[in-house]
Amino acid sequence: MGDSLRNIANTIKDLDSILIFPHINMDGDSLGASTALCLALRSIGKKSYVMLDEEIPENLDFLECGCSIYDVDSYDRFDLSLQIDSSGMNRILGREAAWEKGKIKGCIDHHPTVKQDVYYDFYLTEPETAATGEIIYRLIKYLGAEITLDIANCIFAAIVTDTGNFQYSNTTRQTHEITAELYDIKDFNAKIVSALIYERRSKDSIMMEGEVLSNLEFFSEGKVAIGTLTQDILTKYGCMMNESEGIVQRIMTIEGVEVGCLIKEDDSNLVRVSLRAKHKANVAVVATKFGGGGHLRAAGCTMYISPQEAKKHLIPELIQAAETYV
Amino acid sequence: MGDSLRNIANTIKDLDSILIFPHINMDGDSLGASTALCLALRSIGKKSYVMLDEEIPENLDFLECGCSIYDVDSYDRFDLSLQIDSSGMNRILGREAAWEKGKIKGCIDHHPTVKQDVYYDFYLTEPETAATGEIIYRLIKYLGAEITLDIANCIFAAIVTDTGNFQYSNTTRQTHEITAELYDIKDFNAKIVSALIYERRSKDSIMMEGEVLSNLEFFSEGKVAIGTLTQDILTKYGCMMNESEGIVQRIMTIEGVEVGCLIKEDDSNLVRVSLRAKHKANVAVVATKFGGGGHLRAAGCTMYISPQEAKKHLIPELIQAAETYV
Repeated sequence: MGDSLRNIANTIKDLDSILIFPHINMDGDSLGASTALCLALRSIGKKSYVMLDEEIPENLDFLECGCSIYDVDSYDRFDLSLQIDSSGMNRILGREAAWEKGKIKGCIDHHPTVKQDVYYDFYLTEPETAATGEIIYRLIKYLGAEITLDIANCIFAAIVTDTGNFQYSNTTRQTHEITAELYDIKDFNAKIVSALIYERRSKDSIMMEGEVLSNLEFFSEGKVAIGTLTQDILTKYGCMMNESEGIVQRIMTIEGVEVGCLIKEDDSNLVRVSLRAKHKANVAVVATKFGGGGHLRAAGCTMYISPQEAKKHLIPELIQAAETYV
Repeated sequence: MGDSLRNIANTIKDLDSILIFPHINMDGDSLGASTALCLALRSIGKKSYVMLDEEIPENLDFLECGCSIYDVDSYDRFDLSLQIDSSGMNRILGREAAWEKGKIKGCIDHHPTVKQDVYYDFYLTEPETAATGEIIYRLIKYLGAEITLDIANCIFAAIVTDTGNFQYSNTTRQTHEITAELYDIKDFNAKIVSALIYERRSKDSIMMEGEVLSNLEFFSEGKVAIGTLTQDILTKYGCMMNESEGIVQRIMTIEGVEVGCLIKEDDSNLVRVSLRAKHKANVAVVATKFGGGGHLRAAGCTMYISPQEAKKHLIPELIQAAETYV
């Protein structure tokens, strides 16, 4: 949907400077795809940075690769501002001024729709592609840049984080074909990347997770499971909110659970909600109802109420989602 | 190492009946590869069964596919007894009489050495191949059989369980190439298989896991982590031992842990020990020292002592493994 990737590559080839925008609350796909493209662009002589306005999650720190920049005030204009793995102004919050530094604007995404509250000179979205990292891998090939070890690591991280290690239903033949090619890169070692992403949990966070899981609430005959991570629990275990990564996936391993929900109290009146579906439910609909969004089986929203109030609003919607298979 | 897969395929083509032996304490690779081959052999007109002497683990029940048999007394001799994913008599314990039903004997494995306490008319081991399921996939192609949906599911299950969802260092280009091809099979859905394997945990087992993880012991400055699952804990949560699958992998997600160990009390004086290494340690050496075996980074052994005694014997060996990188 949108412009062809080959045309986008040709457009970019003619430009000298590209500022790349992963989405807020960056994840492995968004940052991995952005950094991979930034490194490739630099390797073919372009000026490029990944524009950020928040700290990189600890388990993704290796995806920085000297690419990120937090301030473009001192820089000239860029030829292109390029949004990666999302669309719309609300996904580049805090970076609006930097976005305007680009003479032209572009967007490369894999979410179903490209939001049109931003004008894009070109855009491409591939809803059938599991990770934006796959699109960027093909773009890098079109650009004629070499897949270096750093780029391979970024692409692998993008793919595994967005496909749940190749287990989610979004995974395709292409996902595995691209990953197979990464093994041709000298010194590529999936285990090293995987360990950086998944195997740097603190003992405290494992225990915190245990507490959340031992207090799950079930509805709709066990089809809906809700976990709640409050500031009190975080304080008890000395954990940061981003150490809750993985809890919602654990919830989904329980037999019979079709819809999983983790309510994370980020502030006294701000909760972030992670939603997952196992096979058939549509949780994007629920997230959208509360101002969020995402994919059919993995979505999220932010609610400006307490965890208890959030739960009250969410329960009927989650039950409906779990009972309405799509 | 051993005979070529093509030659083995030609040998099998000339036979009429094949009895297949996965290893004891069957896992996804062993059973998945065995069933995949059995189904393929049947599809080209052979008589074939998967010979078992134990119950199939619940999360692998979908890999049965009507192939298993527990008693061959009433059957004639078979042309071939074929050991899959292991070698040596101690891996087909309880099925020795059935093994002798085969006029010729064969072995297809991916462990480093083929044990020679059994005479094999042919054998093949590919230590560089992540899963025996990959070898069987190629064998099925050589046999000229079609990859059906059931076979694809078996191969996928074999691969994901032996590669930790493509995250272990044993994963190769071939692993992804074969998996990519599975997506060509009509109705293949990785998520459905994955959910059958991983997403049928009971709430009780998740809580049991939490208790084991919250009582981990650390040695060698956190490089070694040991968890203990006693019969008391199993009873407390009403869980079966096979519901402990995954705990040792959780241990490995902790930062700094190089060697992980789970001691499972199976009986009052029998413990099963699961060992894992993250990057560099050799846990096969430790397992072998106590009469077990396995791979460099994933091994196990059975000890006929109490969990406390087992721990005493294991700790110095695990520390040495964690400090001696290979």
